[in-house]
Amino acid sequence: MAIQLGPNQYGKAENRLVRVFRDTDRHRIRDLNVSTALRGRFEDAHITGDQRDVLPTDTQKNTVFAFAKQKGVAAIEDFALTLGDHFIAACPGADGARVEIDEYAWDRIPVDGVPHDHSFVRTGGGVRTTVVNIDGVGPDRRAHVVSGIKDLVVLKSTGSEFHGFFQDEYTTLEPTTDRIMATSLVARWRYNPTGVIDWDGSFDSIRSILLREFAVVHSYALQQTLYSMGRAVLEQHPDVAEIRFSAPNKHHFQYDLERFGVDNPGEVFIAADRPYGLIEATVERDDAPDPGRAWHGIPGFC
Amino acid sequence: MAIQLGPNQYGKAENRLVRVFRDTDRHRIRDLNVSTALRGRFEDAHITGDQRDVLPTDTQKNTVFAFAKQKGVAAIEDFALTLGDHFIAACPGADGARVEIDEYAWDRIPVDGVPHDHSFVRTGGGVRTTVVNIDGVGPDRRAHVVSGIKDLVVLKSTGSEFHGFFQDEYTTLEPTTDRIMATSLVARWRYNPTGVIDWDGSFDSIRSILLREFAVVHSYALQQTLYSMGRAVLEQHPDVAEIRFSAPNKHHFQYDLERFGVDNPGEVFIAADRPYGLIEATVERDDAPDPGRAWHGIPGFC
Amino acid sequence: MAIQLGPNQYGKAENRLVRVFRDTDRHRIRDLNVSTALRGRFEDAHITGDQRDVLPTDTQKNTVFAFAKQKGVAAIEDFALTLGDHFIAACPGADGARVEIDEYAWDRIPVDGVPHDHSFVRTGGGVRTTVVNIDGVGPDRRAHVVSGIKDLVVLKSTGSEFHGFFQDEYTTLEPTTDRIMATSLVARWRYNPTGVIDWDGSFDSIRSILLREFAVVHSYALQQTLYSMGRAVLEQHPDVAEIRFSAPNKHHFQYDLERFGVDNPGEVFIAADRPYGLIEATVERDDAPDPGRAWHGIPGFC
Amino acid sequence: MAIQLGPNQYGKAENRLVRVFRDTDRHRIRDLNVSTALRGRFEDAHITGDQRDVLPTDTQKNTVFAFAKQKGVAAIEDFALTLGDHFIAACPGADGARVEIDEYAWDRIPVDGVPHDHSFVRTGGGVRTTVVNIDGVGPDRRAHVVSGIKDLVVLKSTGSEFHGFFQDEYTTLEPTTDRIMATSLVARWRYNPTGVIDWDGSFDSIRSILLREFAVVHSYALQQTLYSMGRAVLEQHPDVAEIRFSAPNKHHFQYDLERFGVDNPGEVFIAADRPYGLIEATVERDDAPDPGRAWHGIPGFC
Repeated sequence: MAIQLGPNQYGKAENRLVRVFRDTDRHRIRDLNVSTALRGRFEDAHITGDQRDVLPTDTQKNTVFAFAKQKGVAAIEDFALTLGDHFIAACPGADGARVEIDEYAWDRIPVDGVPHDHSFVRTGGGVRTTVVNIDGVGPDRRAHVVSGIKDLVVLKSTGSEFHGFFQDEYTTLEPTTDRIMATSLVARWRYNPTGVIDWDGSFDSIRSILLREFAVVHSYALQQTLYSMGRAVLEQHPDVAEIRFSAPNKHHFQYDLERFGVDNPGEVFIAADRPYGLIEATVERDDAPDPGRAWHGIPGFC
Repeated sequence: MAIQLGPNQYGKAENRLVRVFRDTDRHRIRDLNVSTALRGRFEDAHITGDQRDVLPTDTQKNTVFAFAKQKGVAAIEDFALTLGDHFIAACPGADGARVEIDEYAWDRIPVDGVPHDHSFVRTGGGVRTTVVNIDGVGPDRRAHVVSGIKDLVVLKSTGSEFHGFFQDEYTTLEPTTDRIMATSLVARWRYNPTGVIDWDGSFDSIRSILLREFAVVHSYALQQTLYSMGRAVLEQHPDVAEIRFSAPNKHHFQYDLERFGVDNPGEVFIAADRPYGLIEATVERDDAPDPGRAWHGIPGFC
Repeated sequence: MAIQLGPNQYGKAENRLVRVFRDTDRHRIRDLNVSTALRGRFEDAHITGDQRDVLPTDTQKNTVFAFAKQKGVAAIEDFALTLGDHFIAACPGADGARVEIDEYAWDRIPVDGVPHDHSFVRTGGGVRTTVVNIDGVGPDRRAHVVSGIKDLVVLKSTGSEFHGFFQDEYTTLEPTTDRIMATSLVARWRYNPTGVIDWDGSFDSIRSILLREFAVVHSYALQQTLYSMGRAVLEQHPDVAEIRFSAPNKHHFQYDLERFGVDNPGEVFIAADRPYGLIEATVERDDAPDPGRAWHGIPGFC
Repeated sequence: MAIQLGPNQYGKAENRLVRVFRDTDRHRIRDLNVSTALRGRFEDAHITGDQRDVLPTDTQKNTVFAFAKQKGVAAIEDFALTLGDHFIAACPGADGARVEIDEYAWDRIPVDGVPHDHSFVRTGGGVRTTVVNIDGVGPDRRAHVVSGIKDLVVLKSTGSEFHGFFQDEYTTLEPTTDRIMATSLVARWRYNPTGVIDWDGSFDSIRSILLREFAVVHSYALQQTLYSMGRAVLEQHPDVAEIRFSAPNKHHFQYDLERFGVDNPGEVFIAADRPYGLIEATVERDDAPDPGRAWHGIPGFC
């Protein structure tokens, strides 16, 4: 028996990069949170403290900001791929890289009905995200792109039932044919590694499909809603190999007003914090290519 | 010298109330966070533990939810006033009440371009809020309404300068004629106590004025932008007596790329977390009525 | 009627300063969060954008860190007073200053039972805090020191009752003679402005008194416990003029196990998040000197 | 090509359970955050909405609280194993279970030097945690226990160097032979599946080893410190098969005071928030048994 170093990675997390495009007076902005990490042959750094093959996290930070000018910032998927390939090439010890980018959405401020040239307001409706994993260089290079949306808070005030469930001695839940269903959705989908993908177009389309399905599916369980959302995405997006969901069931309990002689036919609810149901599900093609490291280090998914 | 009870209040904070209006198949929802508090003659509760004049916070909670059905939920200002007056009347020891309500905004989910009847997505763009303080009943009743918006995150990518400031031996800041200005705005305005106010209409109008001024003012300091925003609100809203701002200066530092031989003419920034500038300012009418307790217990304002 | 600038202040918030004392191999550390703000004659900065009398927040930041070396960091009250007086003297427009400092506690890591010379672990048990307000210079100078503790989370598993309260039609709470009482205490006390105060000694003593009273008082309400805590502090600390509490009642509800044929005599509880009772109370001397601006901008107190 | 359901699980997250042991007047308390999840044959629930094999998350919640009385709460590892086995047996569709428990530490409040019988104060120094995964029943049953500590914030004010690293065109970091090293450590270790383990004893011992190694290792990189900590644990704990770390490098930057003519020999630092280095590493036995699902769904580890 010997003690040895196992899997490891290191990098600079949460570089808050804001890129202004001022080619014309009508500025555009990209507001990103970029995390980079490298993995590979770093035994010496761990065991003897020898840093000779280590590209410091501080250098990774500098590179992120320099590349924002040198390489531009197109879709976050492109920017992540560019950074990942660069780091594997630049760092002697690196065999692989993981780059995660969140993007926050901004709208132009309307002034007398006209969107302003250089003034913006942050919007809600979810944060776009991507996790890119690359292993190797040249012909052996393997790249995985898992993009997604998080903090997409949705609610339907009817069209949701829950009944017919298994009951044991600890079951007290009443079946219902009408309840509020709400979640703060995280969805992440793995793109097929072949073919050219329109990252921005696919994101917009998938976000719309997710919202649409949430709205139109008459739900018998949050599981069923998630599955329907995933199936719709796969049906309409051949560029997607699989999609995973992590969805807290944000319980809204009907408040008992009968005690005060007041009827409450699904009108007054208390929104609870904890505990919450937590539903995780994957919808996939049966012939999806091997995920490899695609889901490496992504929290909250089974 | 004697030891005595000083100012005090008690209540139930953060009742997360969701009200569904299902008069027709086209549901409407209101998503509120309601905090109630009572003040008055509660010496016995503190000194001897005698609760005879205390309306429990649990009862306050029940009342908030019951009133959501019994009284309806119109503008949050109306709902807060209704609750406040009720508690003063209902609780033997109460002379005054403070009710604070935040309202979260939801949009209908678009399905094939049509807003859905009962499915919603949370939006950003700030949280509407009100703080109502009432003292007394009948002819002696005094009510103050301070409404506002918070978490309104705005950014302008140019049109902001900062120079000509006082310098001492610890000053290293470079003057600039072009910088990013960004803040997560909290604005709260006190309505005049006389006259009937269109709460929803005034909120929408003031929010628009704040955004518009932030966009169009060429700024020489965040202070100046805030003052311009406040003045514009007071000029257009005779129903407002004063407005206060608390605005963190969310610094965006131009990243030094010259070290890498890369030019950075206001294009690549790092968004900093802490420390941040914090600017607080009031704009008021010189004949504004006495605020009394209007600003009682509202954090973050000077 | 005219529109004018009202109360305002500006400064640099949350300077995260860590000071290492390495006079000997046995290092000491102070871990602070320092927020500074100035108030005074800043009309020009707001109305015309003229910054000539404004000491930039960036300079305030530099000064905080420079003073940590030049003036040392003794008690946080001393450091705050030193900074406040300096800023009033240094900034042309300033008439007053507000300096708030939080201090995080660290213990030495024990190695084979011996506290280590330069390795530390963060502890809980509350964050020490102070808010210093100074107006004017020379003979007109007025300084107020409000110190305190926050995030002091305490719980007693018995010795707490709640009954005999007022009941109305919305009351459903059952009276109890045995419940869990828990809070995340914020306590802030105003020191008398005269006399030399042992800041560190007083803090340690008051923290002990607060904990002791919470433990030994048989409670009939959180209000009563707070009052007892405050009275004990004032009785033992002539250096304190008044003390204020803000205490969320962190509800622990006895879980209903009877439904499963299981007895639950005060053994199994669910800790709730929201809503929560919120109790605020002041205990003061009847001859306490005028507070002036002492409580200026401190949130969460009535 | 067909679309199908992939990996999934569901459960009730963050059941905040407080258990009071009142066998004698000297109460003991356990303060837990319990999350349960089931996996198995749940296709019908996802595809058709048929819940017949689904044990509702609400029932899982009830069971957690009922078991706290019926089965007691010994070590969190025991409680998690008991819950996991029960759920697999109780739920028709379940093949496996995942139970995660965090435990918050409390000290008795000292009163006149004597620890009080039923009054407690929350301490810092890290949160104990466990993740238990069970698959199957009877002879096929496989159980994995991954225990750990999180939010263990440590700092050493010297004894940390960083130099000799690889440099490229984006490298600006200065090598240093003396810096502050600080992290908010997450460590999780997988217990060997054979043999009877003293859960509480092992946790206390491992926590001590981690702190001790952090203190005594003269560090040439955070990686090296983590590896040393892991090796020490494995050397002293044959019951542990592997240990993983996730450690943000909480940067403390020496503040540049030379600009003000002030020397700063490692005494004044600014603690930064973002970005931060993030170091993840595993130390393992080369003959460690197969981890199976042991690390299933644990975020923040490579």
